Amino acid sequence: MRFIVKPAALAAIAGLGLALAMPAVAQQLKPEEALTLRQGLMLALKTQWMPIGAFAAGKADAPADAVARAENVAAIAKLAPIGWAKGTENLPKAETKAEAFGAKAAAFHDDWKTFAAEADKLVVAAKAGPDALKTQAAATGKLCKGCHEEFKED
Amino acid sequence: MRFIVKPAALAAIAGLGLALAMPAVAQQLKPEEALTLRQGLMLALKTQWMPIGAFAAGKADAPADAVARAENVAAIAKLAPIGWAKGTENLPKAETKAEAFGAKAAAFHDDWKTFAAEADKLVVAAKAGPDALKTQAAATGKLCKGCHEEFKED
Repeated sequence: MRFIVKPAALAAIAGLGLALAMPAVAQQLKPEEALTLRQGLMLALKTQWMPIGAFAAGKADAPADAVARAENVAAIAKLAPIGWAKGTENLPKAETKAEAFGAKAAAFHDDWKTFAAEADKLVVAAKAGPDALKTQAAATGKLCKGCHEEFKED
Repeated sequence: MRFIVKPAALAAIAGLGLALAMPAVAQQLKPEEALTLRQGLMLALKTQWMPIGAFAAGKADAPADAVARAENVAAIAKLAPIGWAKGTENLPKAETKAEAFGAKAAAFHDDWKTFAAEADKLVVAAKAGPDALKTQAAATGKLCKGCHEEFKED
């Protein structure tokens, strides 16, 4: 007697192996909680960044709390990969393209590292003053936009 | 002619002043987004903390990535007050008691500062080794529990 294993069954078995190897973040949270975690971090990043971005775009004065905001941006940048941990590949209503977990996973996580390094420069620039902040914020904002264009669903 | 301003009207005027002085976080986000931000930060804290808490409770071995987890706990502890910024007092489906924004607002924010300081000690303890981690994690966990009991709706 032979067992003929169809590709779909093999994929299911491979998927089970993956599920067992999932890190704690996926095991602890329901899918909707994992999505809330991810979206919450991105919304935190958005609120901390926006007045700096508006200043860089010439739409507002430099925020008085630019240093604290830049420090928060830097802290969130380092935390953000938690939101895309293994086990969060197929969250309902998520807006991340499949490539971020597949063929381009390494590039996606490198983008976060690059962003975290640029955010550290944003802190230095915010401390230096408005001119330095404007220049660095323009560079930081480009990274936001570039990564959204590559990895976020329209 | 005299204007007689009743206490309720005065409160309404004072409330309007408060609304105009709201920080950017409340102005930028819809109420449901502000709640997602808050819940996302708490879920991030939960996922990073839980294996450490399980170890402190004798239910699991010390996690191999305890230092990284403790660093994330410390980073989230410093960010968390963003989630309770002015303008987020009355979010639908929120679980924070009204006192955290009212009579006990100062105590609530002091609790976050205390927690952030304890989380920094957690990083030091995680680097020192499992025995130090277990002792400090017990202290840290008590703060989680105490603040939830005082400020989180049942």
